Amino acid sequence: MTLQKLTAQEQAEALTQLQDWSLVDGREAIKRTLTFKDFNAAFGFMTRVALYADKHDHHPEWFNVYNRVEVTLATHDVQGLSIRDVKLATFINEIYHQ
Amino acid sequence: MTLQKLTAQEQAEALTQLQDWSLVDGREAIKRTLTFKDFNAAFGFMTRVALYADKHDHHPEWFNVYNRVEVTLATHDVQGLSIRDVKLATFINEIYHQ
Repeated sequence: MTLQKLTAQEQAEALTQLQDWSLVDGREAIKRTLTFKDFNAAFGFMTRVALYADKHDHHPEWFNVYNRVEVTLATHDVQGLSIRDVKLATFINEIYHQ
Repeated sequence: MTLQKLTAQEQAEALTQLQDWSLVDGREAIKRTLTFKDFNAAFGFMTRVALYADKHDHHPEWFNVYNRVEVTLATHDVQGLSIRDVKLATFINEIYHQ
């Protein structure tokens, strides 16, 4: 099955479900900023996301400084958001709350 | 010994020596963009830098998307550049060329 771009309604539902994520201004992408105890914890989180990302061949755009990580998700192949972004954001939420 | 901010001359010498690094507009910081074969290689590089950073308690600001990593270095404690940035940039250069 070809990867589909989320419809406006699916996008709205996904944002409600994901919480803490918001649309990026001027782009069909979602973002979330996460903070940790220190760099060690932040990079530990990034490593878990990296393993997920490489396994699923769907990678974040992200910025890190010390204990802060800003994650942006979008799907290049659909020029917008897809189920892959929702799944990756869900994974990020899950491990962030652990 | 207290950490010292690099003098203008030391800064210029460091940039000459480091190559491929440049000053960030409007900030006393240096930056370099590095590209890799794929995300796996880029994150492998980031992991080596993270281990160095945590060991030396001197951390980069960095952005990653897929195979590209943009690194910015500065030393908060001196509000500018210090020998710690030169050492971290040198380490990054070394492992990038491996």
